[in-house]
Amino acid sequence: MKLPTDPAANLAALIRCPSVTPAEGGALTALETMLKPLGFALERPVFSEDGTPDIENLYARRSGNGPHLMFAGHTDVVPVGDETAWTHPPFAAEIANGEMYGRGAVDMKGGIACFIAAVARHVEKAGGPKGSVSLLITGDEEGPAINGTVKLLEWAAGKGEKWDAAIVGEPTNPDTLGDMIKIGRRGSISGSVTVNGRQGHAAYPQLADNPVPGLISLVDALLHPVFDKGTKDFQPTNLEVTSIDVGNPATNVIPAKATATFNIRFNDTWTAETIQAEIHNRLDQAAGRKKYRPGKKTPVDYELVWRDRPSHVFLTRDERLIETLCGSVKATVGRKPALSTSGGTSDARFIKDYCPVVEFGLVGQTMHMVDERVALADLETLTGIYQRFIEDWFGQDHAVG
Amino acid sequence: MKLPTDPAANLAALIRCPSVTPAEGGALTALETMLKPLGFALERPVFSEDGTPDIENLYARRSGNGPHLMFAGHTDVVPVGDETAWTHPPFAAEIANGEMYGRGAVDMKGGIACFIAAVARHVEKAGGPKGSVSLLITGDEEGPAINGTVKLLEWAAGKGEKWDAAIVGEPTNPDTLGDMIKIGRRGSISGSVTVNGRQGHAAYPQLADNPVPGLISLVDALLHPVFDKGTKDFQPTNLEVTSIDVGNPATNVIPAKATATFNIRFNDTWTAETIQAEIHNRLDQAAGRKKYRPGKKTPVDYELVWRDRPSHVFLTRDERLIETLCGSVKATVGRKPALSTSGGTSDARFIKDYCPVVEFGLVGQTMHMVDERVALADLETLTGIYQRFIEDWFGQDHAVG
Repeated sequence: MKLPTDPAANLAALIRCPSVTPAEGGALTALETMLKPLGFALERPVFSEDGTPDIENLYARRSGNGPHLMFAGHTDVVPVGDETAWTHPPFAAEIANGEMYGRGAVDMKGGIACFIAAVARHVEKAGGPKGSVSLLITGDEEGPAINGTVKLLEWAAGKGEKWDAAIVGEPTNPDTLGDMIKIGRRGSISGSVTVNGRQGHAAYPQLADNPVPGLISLVDALLHPVFDKGTKDFQPTNLEVTSIDVGNPATNVIPAKATATFNIRFNDTWTAETIQAEIHNRLDQAAGRKKYRPGKKTPVDYELVWRDRPSHVFLTRDERLIETLCGSVKATVGRKPALSTSGGTSDARFIKDYCPVVEFGLVGQTMHMVDERVALADLETLTGIYQRFIEDWFGQDHAVG
Repeated sequence: MKLPTDPAANLAALIRCPSVTPAEGGALTALETMLKPLGFALERPVFSEDGTPDIENLYARRSGNGPHLMFAGHTDVVPVGDETAWTHPPFAAEIANGEMYGRGAVDMKGGIACFIAAVARHVEKAGGPKGSVSLLITGDEEGPAINGTVKLLEWAAGKGEKWDAAIVGEPTNPDTLGDMIKIGRRGSISGSVTVNGRQGHAAYPQLADNPVPGLISLVDALLHPVFDKGTKDFQPTNLEVTSIDVGNPATNVIPAKATATFNIRFNDTWTAETIQAEIHNRLDQAAGRKKYRPGKKTPVDYELVWRDRPSHVFLTRDERLIETLCGSVKATVGRKPALSTSGGTSDARFIKDYCPVVEFGLVGQTMHMVDERVALADLETLTGIYQRFIEDWFGQDHAVG
């Protein structure tokens, strides 16, 4: 039986499945076709929750005698946008000038295609890794992410699955393959602060209470001073005011309330709890300082609401995992990748609760765009890096957990 | 023929006309019925403009040999709101506990009713004022005010009408009849300032340009320092930020632009032109100072748009007019009224271009509210004040213009 050693063939099969979230689109079946000949046992659990679409996921394990490596990713893709703007159809996997076009080419069917090719080459060359390899693949990463990775991890762990390390195949390289490994992520938390005033006529400000000056003071306290200057592993914590809204169309009316919404990306100086406490503190202090009118000190009446759940900050401390991946990159492309914790959140933030996790995949430049595409050379290179990593990581002594 | 000497009867007749802007509602016809027996010549010009309703207005003149006094006002009223919430129907002029209920009772059919009663009593008692008296009554004060006082003044002046003084009968008294005469008004001007940034992902602020911190700096510059401490005749100039709007629902997105809207009530320290220049100055300075990122100074890219036409500040300098009205109030209620320039704009700002103008009418507390009403005693008192004023003002020597 022909093994799936060609990453381009694997990717073409996946791109041809129109698996726009929440549709499975045939993508998990395509994976099954590739993984079965490699000796993987597969399950495709469907998770449900009121108000969200049912999502089909895949967990495949090739069991061995030794440590357990997880590869995590997703087969769902974002919508194609304006299909007529694509140079090549988004679900055709057409190749032009050494690049394969298609939605998901880099984010992240390409990463999955390369990892499977890497395992297949290892099987062909050396009978496969001596330990266990699992693929934890969700169909709900680009969507609400309710019926995806979090539930899949709980489900697998509930069946007794344990992992020693994980690699997430998201596109981590800004410009060139080999640029960057992600070894952690900042936390993220959003909130909104509303100042309550009293409506009135703009000609009689003494009878009203404009909430805007108070909100300006509070927003200023959110923005200054800087939270920290960054740490060894992380960029500085950053707060962005993402919206301010009053919605008063009448220029002769003083409004009753004003709201500012903000998002914080915080580093390991903080936890979600301590950054929340800091925000409360800043707002309380600014609210007490505020002078509404000359000579009259009035505390600002404000309300702070946190939105959604926070994403927690994390940093992977498994030096051997990181060094092994770095070494595989260096051996393949000739230079060391940067170790980064920049950018947005990813599913790695859920996986880190189960085992050390790093992220490395293709070049992200065309992700989510019209004409998403990947260089065939990059598919070869990433397959080589993954294969080298599998060889090196399983070649080490592991204290199996 | 019975002359309209009873202000309550005059007012009842006017309240029973449902003259909600732009409807004439019979109110001008009711005035005609009152004024003809007093020797007034009447015209009812209708003014039109594309996009606004046609409005009928009234100009009535009782010509004499001497100075010319204008009484200005409006018969149109604001809508009744929740009619079921009224204790007495809004167009019935019912009397209870010494108060007459109805839309327009104080704003300002009551003022017109009293002025006509005052003229009628003067006619009955002394044959009427020796000079000329005009009533300049619009039906478009509470509406868009396009086809009202401004056009009526132009129209009358175009026919050769000249006035030596004007009294506007709007409700000027905050609590008790005799509290306050308005002898001028602050100017009013509105604008909006928009800061342009660059949209982006909240996790990659270095690739975006959040307009909010820049807008906060500009708004702060609008609010501080105070423009002035007020003048002998005016309250301090005041700026209210009436809205701030970004309208970005996504907490992981940095918005592309942010807008603040503001209204300024300015005193005679300024003209519309100088206050506009001051605002430009403040914004330019704050825009240049702004630091987007530590160590990197970037000017804020902003746009300032002025809304509508400004209302110009004015102060009536005719001491004799003011003193005569004050004296009439003091003689009738036993105390001197405050001379004020507070509050919003009024049609007096148009009349002041033709002759000195003061404003005095009823107590404004119930204006625009459910159960708008006036004490019958107040109608008597105001009629007495107007009558005394007519006697005194026409009794003086005037250099007729």
